[in-house]
Amino acid sequence: MAKRQTAPSAEVLARAGVDLHLELEGRGLRAGLTEALREAVRSGRLAPGTRLPASRALASDLGIARSTVTECYAELVAEGWMTAQQGSGTRVALRAEPRRPSTATVDAEAGAGASGVPAIRATHGLGPGVAEFAEFPRAPWLAAARRALAAAPHSAFGYGDPLGRMELRTALADYLSRVRGVRAEPQCIIICSGFHHGLTLTAHALAAGGVRAVAVEGYGLDIYRATLADAGLRIPPLGVDEGGARIDELALADVGAVLLTPAHQFPTGFALAPERRAAVLDWARTTGGVVLEDDYDGEFRYDRKPVGALQGLDPEHVIYFGTASKSLAPALRLGWMVVPESLLPAVAAAKGRVETVSVLDQLTFAEFVTSGAFDRHVRARRTTYRHRRDELVAAAVQSSAEVRVTGMAAGLQAVIELPTGTELRAVQEAARQGLIVSGMAQFRHPDAGPHVPRRDALVVNFSVVSDSAWPGALHTLSSVLPQSVLP
Amino acid sequence: MAKRQTAPSAEVLARAGVDLHLELEGRGLRAGLTEALREAVRSGRLAPGTRLPASRALASDLGIARSTVTECYAELVAEGWMTAQQGSGTRVALRAEPRRPSTATVDAEAGAGASGVPAIRATHGLGPGVAEFAEFPRAPWLAAARRALAAAPHSAFGYGDPLGRMELRTALADYLSRVRGVRAEPQCIIICSGFHHGLTLTAHALAAGGVRAVAVEGYGLDIYRATLADAGLRIPPLGVDEGGARIDELALADVGAVLLTPAHQFPTGFALAPERRAAVLDWARTTGGVVLEDDYDGEFRYDRKPVGALQGLDPEHVIYFGTASKSLAPALRLGWMVVPESLLPAVAAAKGRVETVSVLDQLTFAEFVTSGAFDRHVRARRTTYRHRRDELVAAAVQSSAEVRVTGMAAGLQAVIELPTGTELRAVQEAARQGLIVSGMAQFRHPDAGPHVPRRDALVVNFSVVSDSAWPGALHTLSSVLPQSVLP
Repeated sequence: MAKRQTAPSAEVLARAGVDLHLELEGRGLRAGLTEALREAVRSGRLAPGTRLPASRALASDLGIARSTVTECYAELVAEGWMTAQQGSGTRVALRAEPRRPSTATVDAEAGAGASGVPAIRATHGLGPGVAEFAEFPRAPWLAAARRALAAAPHSAFGYGDPLGRMELRTALADYLSRVRGVRAEPQCIIICSGFHHGLTLTAHALAAGGVRAVAVEGYGLDIYRATLADAGLRIPPLGVDEGGARIDELALADVGAVLLTPAHQFPTGFALAPERRAAVLDWARTTGGVVLEDDYDGEFRYDRKPVGALQGLDPEHVIYFGTASKSLAPALRLGWMVVPESLLPAVAAAKGRVETVSVLDQLTFAEFVTSGAFDRHVRARRTTYRHRRDELVAAAVQSSAEVRVTGMAAGLQAVIELPTGTELRAVQEAARQGLIVSGMAQFRHPDAGPHVPRRDALVVNFSVVSDSAWPGALHTLSSVLPQSVLP
Repeated sequence: MAKRQTAPSAEVLARAGVDLHLELEGRGLRAGLTEALREAVRSGRLAPGTRLPASRALASDLGIARSTVTECYAELVAEGWMTAQQGSGTRVALRAEPRRPSTATVDAEAGAGASGVPAIRATHGLGPGVAEFAEFPRAPWLAAARRALAAAPHSAFGYGDPLGRMELRTALADYLSRVRGVRAEPQCIIICSGFHHGLTLTAHALAAGGVRAVAVEGYGLDIYRATLADAGLRIPPLGVDEGGARIDELALADVGAVLLTPAHQFPTGFALAPERRAAVLDWARTTGGVVLEDDYDGEFRYDRKPVGALQGLDPEHVIYFGTASKSLAPALRLGWMVVPESLLPAVAAAKGRVETVSVLDQLTFAEFVTSGAFDRHVRARRTTYRHRRDELVAAAVQSSAEVRVTGMAAGLQAVIELPTGTELRAVQEAARQGLIVSGMAQFRHPDAGPHVPRRDALVVNFSVVSDSAWPGALHTLSSVLPQSVLP
């Protein structure tokens, strides 16, 4: 979690809302929450005037009864720490002066320490580098873990197949076929610890097979470019426009593979145009090249049914990558790749001799998928994310005629296009207000030439904050967008 | 799981006992167990004459009431599938002919399939390569997972610190200090997915730092030698005798590091002699060398308190490796390294940018350790393993005056020294009887010269089978040991 450099004003905190992280035990729940808030005010971590989350939202976030929260608020009001006013919620009392200079951000790690001291954080992140992931389905996950542990044979607790547990590979073969149109036998699916791991394995397998260069999209995450470069591969950039990556440039690129995000280009948010989907497969067939399909958020499309995976059109020339990092949580460190039979030995060799992904998590996720819990979770998140995206579009429209949300109604990030020359100021102003958000410039390939035009835009990951923190984060975001100059 | 080539006779199966893997639901438990056994007899997977596990042992294995098992057995006897005789337990009836040629081994994976069809396996493994691990503490682990999930802040579900969750590193710093005398600040502990992963990181860090060779023990696991060699390191062997590795040979070896198992040499079972402990640290200080301490089973010592870790004597020259693979289960893919501050940047760089170990498992294990559940589990296993080792010693003594168990009363493996020239026959005979066990020759360094004497011995990992399968496995093992020729 990046730390804020300056403390926000009370007004900012009040607008941004407060995200609470509390270690709650079964007993003394209310007393613990009350003391945590009291201590946060006393130490200045919650500044005077800060508005607390609505009791309903906080209760839902913490998985406790709403009455516990309202009783706690009432007690703090009675003690004078807070004030309650009809229509403006509960706020930190203005006379509740901090003991020492206020720093609004307490490191998230501190809040989870063994000490049991609850921490309160007031900084939001809406960027891809944010080490935060709210709304993990804790109870359904635990229930799946219970069933998976009960069913697991003794042999499941051994070293395991380096390619992954067959239960999970079978469950994923069914799921990916149903949801993404992927064509895969379970034995062609390799379990890995996420896209980064899968790409690392693939980079080494390609390099070992004589590939010297992999084309990448002109906008993308630097960590993946570095992964390929670390394996000794050149990474020439392709142009990116409203039809996705410029596949026509592949012909001149002299590469053995291309890394694409066809369903939803990251970060620009466009889908790969149908004729380009056909063209990249033609290129692969003609040249013997390999398409690396990063399907990071394929489950999330809000306007219509998602376009199926490229892999389904030509399983022999595409390595398909999926991950639980976007749909469930990065903390699982769980991803999967569907590998053409011809490349299987090389990728398996790169993976090595020992399973590196928790077998218990694999069995739990297999149970989570086959029981239908995963579908239910994705469906619920889809509804939430669609709503958040709509609110983002509305906020952009209200701000200025020059500001608009571009890209598809899909995925977990939205792109807010800004007037030329205003991106850096917006990112900095957001940071000053405690909101971490990325500018488009951050994702531009360092070797990109004029065929990858610069665009002023914010890339907003609206999936990472909790339900209670979202309204405040949106409010802060709105305030940093360039405003229309009224005539 | 290696598959047997030939079906064992009924007598063998009867001696070897039966390890049952059943998917049991809350309802219909007895009916399910009864049908599973009936089907196993019908299909020939349980051969006529096979003795079933004692009801107490099977009930304990399956975590069900003993009465459920006895009722099930009684029902099968009443139906004529089984026979019960005072003193010889319950056996498969001799007239219960198999439908088709019997194959005693059903792939363990099949038993865990989504189909819910229970499988019965009758092959044991007592070797290090056995993909089996019984007695995982399922209920306490799940309870810890529940507490950890409830307490985890939102931020815990993000990508996480590539070096590991601070909760776990803190818990391990305390635990390792208390149990193994390791001196470590939490920030010097790196979480990895097991010893293999930790050694891989270390090998790359050492190679990047200019190390060209790492001395290894003349007997050890080939996979670790391969890991070092894959990083481009030479791996000259040291002699191994009853005082552990021959540290005096280091002076001539021209290496930058040495990989040791000081607490319990694997596989020979001796501790590194006190003067050699001092000598290897002297070597490290004098030459700037690094000692890699593989403390794979340090928690298990049966005669007296374990000797503390080497690392505690000189934290600046030792990288300490520990793992949950031996004390809990390989399936967790969870290990840890304690790294000298000077080497921390290089090892962290090798680990890369993204956490690769399940954060949920890390949080659960932290809770498992701090709550005392880990201590309780290790204590209980220690009692079991001590007992098994004693039985192994007794079996060896009964067999022949030339057969004896050597090495310390410690760890999870025992070495049964055999008369010269009898090792291969014993390994093959065990395999023929459905018991996988390793010969000492399997562990000998391929470049080892006369300073690493050949020894005929079996290396028996007595920790991997379930409580119900152990007596049968021991019986089979006894039968393949060379017998005394009576005068």
